[in-house]
Amino acid sequence: MKKPSIIEHCPEGFYSYHTSCGIKDESLDLGVIYSENPSTASALFTQNAFVGEPIKIGRNIIKNGSLQAIVVNSKNSNVATGLQGHENSLKICKKIASEMKINEDLVLPSSTGVIGRPLPVEKIINGLNNLKTKLVKPADFIGFATAIMTTDTFPKFVSAKLGNASIVGVAKGSGMIEPNMATMLAYFFTDAQINAHALHRILRACASKSFNCLSVDSDTSTSDTLAIMANGLAGEVNVVEFENTLEMLCTDLTKMIARDGEGATKLFTVDVINADIFDSARKIGKSIINSPLVKTMIYKGDPNWGRIYMAVGKTKNVHLDEPNMKIQWGKDRLLDSNSPISELHKYLTENEEIHLTVDLGTGTESCRVYGCDLTEEYVRINAYYTT
Amino acid sequence: MKKPSIIEHCPEGFYSYHTSCGIKDESLDLGVIYSENPSTASALFTQNAFVGEPIKIGRNIIKNGSLQAIVVNSKNSNVATGLQGHENSLKICKKIASEMKINEDLVLPSSTGVIGRPLPVEKIINGLNNLKTKLVKPADFIGFATAIMTTDTFPKFVSAKLGNASIVGVAKGSGMIEPNMATMLAYFFTDAQINAHALHRILRACASKSFNCLSVDSDTSTSDTLAIMANGLAGEVNVVEFENTLEMLCTDLTKMIARDGEGATKLFTVDVINADIFDSARKIGKSIINSPLVKTMIYKGDPNWGRIYMAVGKTKNVHLDEPNMKIQWGKDRLLDSNSPISELHKYLTENEEIHLTVDLGTGTESCRVYGCDLTEEYVRINAYYTT
Repeated sequence: MKKPSIIEHCPEGFYSYHTSCGIKDESLDLGVIYSENPSTASALFTQNAFVGEPIKIGRNIIKNGSLQAIVVNSKNSNVATGLQGHENSLKICKKIASEMKINEDLVLPSSTGVIGRPLPVEKIINGLNNLKTKLVKPADFIGFATAIMTTDTFPKFVSAKLGNASIVGVAKGSGMIEPNMATMLAYFFTDAQINAHALHRILRACASKSFNCLSVDSDTSTSDTLAIMANGLAGEVNVVEFENTLEMLCTDLTKMIARDGEGATKLFTVDVINADIFDSARKIGKSIINSPLVKTMIYKGDPNWGRIYMAVGKTKNVHLDEPNMKIQWGKDRLLDSNSPISELHKYLTENEEIHLTVDLGTGTESCRVYGCDLTEEYVRINAYYTT
Repeated sequence: MKKPSIIEHCPEGFYSYHTSCGIKDESLDLGVIYSENPSTASALFTQNAFVGEPIKIGRNIIKNGSLQAIVVNSKNSNVATGLQGHENSLKICKKIASEMKINEDLVLPSSTGVIGRPLPVEKIINGLNNLKTKLVKPADFIGFATAIMTTDTFPKFVSAKLGNASIVGVAKGSGMIEPNMATMLAYFFTDAQINAHALHRILRACASKSFNCLSVDSDTSTSDTLAIMANGLAGEVNVVEFENTLEMLCTDLTKMIARDGEGATKLFTVDVINADIFDSARKIGKSIINSPLVKTMIYKGDPNWGRIYMAVGKTKNVHLDEPNMKIQWGKDRLLDSNSPISELHKYLTENEEIHLTVDLGTGTESCRVYGCDLTEEYVRINAYYTT
């Protein structure tokens, strides 16, 4: 996994603004992306039964399949804040609508941060005063990616070219992450022209193979959001190519989020292959990457086969065939239980990206899942945190 | 939770032996409990799809509903050791049978420790030479409880009187523990007279309310065993009283195991009450006690309500009714979201036993689950461990 450094391909027609409006401290906490025209749009939200107020608003407005702006604050998630919280999120949308003279139904709000604290909405509203004059073009997607960070250690962004069009994706992690649809916050912006129905189908398909296969700590946030805006300025694109490109970008962001999981030192990728059904492959993969004993083993590289067997075996309601199962470590050169233990130890301790393949031998379905190691630092980040 | 110091009530007719036979080092690693007569018996084993060789043997012999001896070694689990491993466990049973001149089908074997290493069976066989002369009576249950420990920090035992009869229970934890039937290793010995059918029903019922409601780290061992031997020397007992007493003892051991979870500093008990069905209550309880973000919060006592909501909300396939749900901390004096945050912080930081009640308000079913906090020490124990 390579950390991003620049946005290579920037879509036309997007503006951005980011600032510190002082929600908690002096660091960046507010970001806006604005398209010069209403864009075809789609979004997916958390599967947690309890959701933040912005999610309730987002689920409603995305039904129109159209967005012109996305506004995100960090430091406060506006979750479990009741009617006042709902009003506050609406206020932010209305403010952007009134500043930009657009319909408020074209503004998607997101919030991330502490749960259960009133959102200091006036600070955000003040931060959005004279938005039109503050917006810059081309959009500073790196600035936006930085403004939405919480415990992330680096801003996450990707980009690709596709015919005349470009796609940019930005995301934040990095704890409370086992999305079950999207994950955390992730947004894509493109100047490709694509209809809302196709866009929604493609977004779902890409999420199921990328963000939905990710777990940092098995916890599902109440605020997860994945959204895409396609403003069409670059004209039509090949839909199949578009889907392939978007899937690649989703996967790249997924790997960045896993690698930057709270306290993580390693990216852990597991291929579960030859399962009887896809769902079994994904469940077994998730059982492995969520196992605290496997995650601590990845951390310091002890070649403990038993923990992998344990994590596969504890998965509920899947078909297993012990004699046919094969476990292999590595990517280019595969190590199995007949390989010298010293080689495996070397592989596990000397690499920052650890790859495991579990061949179930019961069918033809496969799933790749992404996780990270569990370290003392994860505990420190989350135990010594004060609300 | 009080740590045990002495066995107050000792059943008649049981002998014991424990030693260090040198499986790994000089510490105790082998224990035997022997009844002077064949005992009515029952046992429950792990729900992991992959099981140790002793489990395969145990599942078979327990069908007879009778045992005369239990033999346990620590330091090596005899899991993933193939046919040779199976032979090795059988050899140990045969050795005890031949030393004591009993049928080998009356000997239940257990092994706990590292997975995937050949069991040094000759050391164990040597350790069992002249067993008859080495057995002591009354049985030294504390010695036995000590010999079966792995990363446990104290031996776990309980006892109770019931009419003329006594019951002793011993157990070990303390990682790879989310049993789904029994947990880890736990054994009960009683001189009560009770038929095999009733004993099995009672053991299952007690396990479902105690060991099955326990999770240290969400990982399910391949060797979990819960067994009971009733040699009948004290005559018949009231079956209802017997069940109540056994349930109390199972719960006490469950709490000890949770409190002594790897690296744990706190016992965390969660009551999920007023659920529509029992299964939902247990699932939600387990989701809370297994959430890394809740567990780290319990560790340092940050009063973060949001993490509890998150853990309830992420539970799959349960009926939730947000407006009716109530969350309260504490046992004697209950703290809710209207209580001063300083009081809650004080409660969470100044107690070694933390109690949470989640009132779902959707029905009348309840479940109590047991867990512990997640600390840097858990990571250290499991990451720096060398197989």
